[in-house]
Amino acid sequence: MSGNSIGKAFILTTFGESHGVAVGGVIDGFPANLEINVSYIQSELDRRRSGKEFFSSPRIEEDKLEILSGLFEGKSTGAPIAFLVYNQDQRPSDYDHLANAFRPSHADYTWKQKFGIRDPRGGGRASARETLARVAGGAFAKSFLHTKNIKIVAGICQIGEYQIPDPVSHISEPQILSFLEQLKADGDTTGGVIACTISGVPAGLGEPVFDKLHADLAKAMLSINAVKGFEYGSGFRSASMKGSEHNDLFVNKNGVIRTLTNHSGGIQGGISNGEDIYFRVAFKPVATLMKDQDTVNSDGEPTVLKGKGRHDVCVVPRALPIVEAMAALVIADHMIRNGER
Amino acid sequence: MSGNSIGKAFILTTFGESHGVAVGGVIDGFPANLEINVSYIQSELDRRRSGKEFFSSPRIEEDKLEILSGLFEGKSTGAPIAFLVYNQDQRPSDYDHLANAFRPSHADYTWKQKFGIRDPRGGGRASARETLARVAGGAFAKSFLHTKNIKIVAGICQIGEYQIPDPVSHISEPQILSFLEQLKADGDTTGGVIACTISGVPAGLGEPVFDKLHADLAKAMLSINAVKGFEYGSGFRSASMKGSEHNDLFVNKNGVIRTLTNHSGGIQGGISNGEDIYFRVAFKPVATLMKDQDTVNSDGEPTVLKGKGRHDVCVVPRALPIVEAMAALVIADHMIRNGER
Amino acid sequence: MSGNSIGKAFILTTFGESHGVAVGGVIDGFPANLEINVSYIQSELDRRRSGKEFFSSPRIEEDKLEILSGLFEGKSTGAPIAFLVYNQDQRPSDYDHLANAFRPSHADYTWKQKFGIRDPRGGGRASARETLARVAGGAFAKSFLHTKNIKIVAGICQIGEYQIPDPVSHISEPQILSFLEQLKADGDTTGGVIACTISGVPAGLGEPVFDKLHADLAKAMLSINAVKGFEYGSGFRSASMKGSEHNDLFVNKNGVIRTLTNHSGGIQGGISNGEDIYFRVAFKPVATLMKDQDTVNSDGEPTVLKGKGRHDVCVVPRALPIVEAMAALVIADHMIRNGER
Amino acid sequence: MSGNSIGKAFILTTFGESHGVAVGGVIDGFPANLEINVSYIQSELDRRRSGKEFFSSPRIEEDKLEILSGLFEGKSTGAPIAFLVYNQDQRPSDYDHLANAFRPSHADYTWKQKFGIRDPRGGGRASARETLARVAGGAFAKSFLHTKNIKIVAGICQIGEYQIPDPVSHISEPQILSFLEQLKADGDTTGGVIACTISGVPAGLGEPVFDKLHADLAKAMLSINAVKGFEYGSGFRSASMKGSEHNDLFVNKNGVIRTLTNHSGGIQGGISNGEDIYFRVAFKPVATLMKDQDTVNSDGEPTVLKGKGRHDVCVVPRALPIVEAMAALVIADHMIRNGER
Repeated sequence: MSGNSIGKAFILTTFGESHGVAVGGVIDGFPANLEINVSYIQSELDRRRSGKEFFSSPRIEEDKLEILSGLFEGKSTGAPIAFLVYNQDQRPSDYDHLANAFRPSHADYTWKQKFGIRDPRGGGRASARETLARVAGGAFAKSFLHTKNIKIVAGICQIGEYQIPDPVSHISEPQILSFLEQLKADGDTTGGVIACTISGVPAGLGEPVFDKLHADLAKAMLSINAVKGFEYGSGFRSASMKGSEHNDLFVNKNGVIRTLTNHSGGIQGGISNGEDIYFRVAFKPVATLMKDQDTVNSDGEPTVLKGKGRHDVCVVPRALPIVEAMAALVIADHMIRNGER
Repeated sequence: MSGNSIGKAFILTTFGESHGVAVGGVIDGFPANLEINVSYIQSELDRRRSGKEFFSSPRIEEDKLEILSGLFEGKSTGAPIAFLVYNQDQRPSDYDHLANAFRPSHADYTWKQKFGIRDPRGGGRASARETLARVAGGAFAKSFLHTKNIKIVAGICQIGEYQIPDPVSHISEPQILSFLEQLKADGDTTGGVIACTISGVPAGLGEPVFDKLHADLAKAMLSINAVKGFEYGSGFRSASMKGSEHNDLFVNKNGVIRTLTNHSGGIQGGISNGEDIYFRVAFKPVATLMKDQDTVNSDGEPTVLKGKGRHDVCVVPRALPIVEAMAALVIADHMIRNGER
Repeated sequence: MSGNSIGKAFILTTFGESHGVAVGGVIDGFPANLEINVSYIQSELDRRRSGKEFFSSPRIEEDKLEILSGLFEGKSTGAPIAFLVYNQDQRPSDYDHLANAFRPSHADYTWKQKFGIRDPRGGGRASARETLARVAGGAFAKSFLHTKNIKIVAGICQIGEYQIPDPVSHISEPQILSFLEQLKADGDTTGGVIACTISGVPAGLGEPVFDKLHADLAKAMLSINAVKGFEYGSGFRSASMKGSEHNDLFVNKNGVIRTLTNHSGGIQGGISNGEDIYFRVAFKPVATLMKDQDTVNSDGEPTVLKGKGRHDVCVVPRALPIVEAMAALVIADHMIRNGER
Repeated sequence: MSGNSIGKAFILTTFGESHGVAVGGVIDGFPANLEINVSYIQSELDRRRSGKEFFSSPRIEEDKLEILSGLFEGKSTGAPIAFLVYNQDQRPSDYDHLANAFRPSHADYTWKQKFGIRDPRGGGRASARETLARVAGGAFAKSFLHTKNIKIVAGICQIGEYQIPDPVSHISEPQILSFLEQLKADGDTTGGVIACTISGVPAGLGEPVFDKLHADLAKAMLSINAVKGFEYGSGFRSASMKGSEHNDLFVNKNGVIRTLTNHSGGIQGGISNGEDIYFRVAFKPVATLMKDQDTVNSDGEPTVLKGKGRHDVCVVPRALPIVEAMAALVIADHMIRNGER
């Protein structure tokens, strides 16, 4: 009901706040008897954290994964896998009286409205730090999918107004870099778009009505902080296409039924058809600015929020492993639902 | 697991195939003691079916709703509300040997791959007729939301390449009509985009992590046949905006905390903030063409699919009540989850 | 949340009131491509209804099953299977002003307290007629289990104070019959106990922590109206046993690991071990008496409830198919959860 | 699907093995803005562990609770509450070759059959140590229920063949103590029965069909290791009662509708009626004996299991807080489901 779990058969439950004791998760439904490479899981966390680029400002602390249960002698046992990362930057209290200001386009106001209480420590549960548990959980899911030869790769395909026709894993284009540099100088931020491709998915994954494979992917993506849109296959562009251009004709390629084109994005009627699954995810600009912003406090009084603290100019480069993780969780869930182990 | 239910607290389960006995649903979690106007529910079904326009070709049969349970003397009792519409065009078998051809960009092939059997009667469960149960279920949800002054209105904002700045409930623009007429003459089809606005939602609806309100809306929309994309608030456009343009500043308007702009689309951190919720949904062109198409049959042999039968040039006008219904189901679910009755 | 569904992978949702339009259900998760013998499903309904014995007073109406979806040419398609039985004895309203009296040990008072409204038509949703959907759903589950050679047989092992060492499917013992005759003459009722054995369950079914196989059986049994207790294997008797008597020693019988005794009732640590599963279910005496009873009405005023209408002296004989149905639903659910199709 | 969570609205997910890194849990759905007395939670863990009596042999290690998330300045924030206890007696591997012997009436064999792998470290996930997370989770549930004046008290009502008419929280009766002493000397064990009463539950809790309040209690109790039976209200005894003795007549006591007797055990039609809820839970004798037992190993070869290690003569005294915890989780879940916060 409170929605801190995702999946029906491969279920990740996450917990933890930005400046609380720890961030972590529990996976229920991980297949038994699989070898787990713990350093791979850690490497995904490092990938999420890394951001040597000038335009990201990750926490300095290392995110050291601890696995608490579910493994024995390097293999999954069928028991739930719990893991966590302790926060080195814990703040039992936070007496900053600016804590009362509702930061624009953050979750401060809505959390307070919903729960009647607010955890002001760096956004608490609504912080981007929560994605750490997604990435760890997703790395476990990927470990399972690797045994089935399923691969998930996300790349950056847009930063601000700059389109990147061939999605990249990090930004090297000088024009974009100088755009980001200027934003940083201005204390401003930008959005972007991530494209993701899933290959190796067998035909038959997904459910035909409400739990369509792409519907579950959409939910998973929109559950990531700052995501504003999702499209798969031909996406929004399909709206202006004709059926005769858009339909993917079936052909027999060496005994395997394939489609000539793939506007369907690998999913038809909610079920995978064996072609590559691909989709795009839009991220809004980071809401934390290094600029003053007008707002109100919890008493409804006008106040000014000063820009200070850490600041990502653009979240997209660091969101790649998060997008992959969420995709992996969805695909793993549907694999288990299909009876694959 | 098989995903014929949606919602966690206000749960709609649907059943029924295109040319089976009946299509219907069961609502579990409908609040007790509410008056139900059955003719309103019927009117939503009629609205879905209607399509006097030349470019839609609805079934001729009337969709007569029967309510089987959950009401007593016009009020909900707290028991599940079951309803159905009998199919007048039932076909216990369908000996059409074209049944074996996999229709391009339909669910025929993937269903067969998943379940190892295919119901060839008009697409079976994957048919658009399944949406009838969504519209009826959504009409019950709307009945509940009306008591809370929540309103949901969907409109057409794009047909093919034609943008419609002010979303409309039906097409009257001559240019678009002649575009559709030409498509019909060609046996072809087009896609489109629907915009939807939900007003009157109190602040505090939705959950902060995986069950973000917009994530559940995304899933609900992507679960509709032919939908390829979803965006809310500033959507994909936000990717090219700066944080300083995009952030919605808080202000105190006569004692109520509001935002000056609404790029957030009424949802921040997954939780409603009291502003209008709005989103857009992209539909691909209808896959059924009145043209011959190359394909393969279930033996993998090349064959030609002849265009015949009923044919919608564009699904978007008839999808308006479906989009509204799915939105209503999501909002009702989160209202109940919040303890509202 | 409102609990009209049972199961996580093989899910039965039921609907319908005693004197409403119809009683029925939807099964989501039924394996595709299985032949369904509809007359077998009907025969289970007939078995539930039958009660030629003087001490049961079933409704005279026939319970004619209609299957609405999920089958094509006699086979399951993977789509949800919906079914219903129309009530021949529908009562749109019930003006009996005795309707206001809360019947002792029925659900009238608690339903009103929970939902703020009461459906007085024969107990509405809380009526024994609701079990019809359980029996039909269970018959589908049994159809699946038959393909796996799993058999479920319930028998009567106690009526009032009369123990029946070898459980029977109907009462023929003269002493018990005359006990029941006397009760009937007195307008009184009695309880009883049902024993159930499930054979052919492979080792490995059930989950080790909260969803232990016997825990799910317990819930399923206790969800049947009038059930007051559940025990499996050695049950309550185990409380007075020593570990050295109770432990089931493992032996190798022709290459299969078996246990010498079966105090475990076929389940160890929540998971089946391949031995017969057996359990016992206690039913309280029927609450509807043909005697006057003191009670209060919905205004809290004292009133007298007159004995009238149909009246079962003992519910146990007619509950056999219900116990079997609920067991079948639990076993089918865990089979699907284990990836069996 | 793997069943490491319980509850639909107040959801406890547990993790951890006997000799793994840690045992713990995550509560999703805990009401926001409640004060949490952490030392109370710890005291419940201590109560579970304590067993100064000669007939229990708890681990020597202290169970020190760490709370990882969900609290801010002593209050719940609406975020999930994660907690754990590190195992001081961790064993990364366990080379004991006896590990291969399947212990009689434990979960060793069935776990291996289900998952194809076995964690031999003290029973792994199937160990009684798993109940630590239940007790901690239940203590949080109790903290919530205390704010609603709901009280849960369990007591011992039978040890072996000794009935204890007035349930007690620990054994002082000399006859029973000498019975237990003799068992200990013999390396043997015994079972027992726990009675539990829940007072202060408002009328209207529970759902009328599958999620009857007592059905959820039954499942929760049967999910505890070693539990073999459950009965509520008049229980198995009701089978031999007449309806005229068993029915609880309604009366108006100073404006409140009450029942004259309480054979219903506070629940009618699955919904609480405001009277005390009470039930009884049967525990089998502890399966670990200090005696040699015949068994087979994982190759199916006969072997002898030596009695050694820690050994509880009777689990019942230490199970009191576990029974209370599970009851608290069920009641809290239904409170939240009813919209109580």
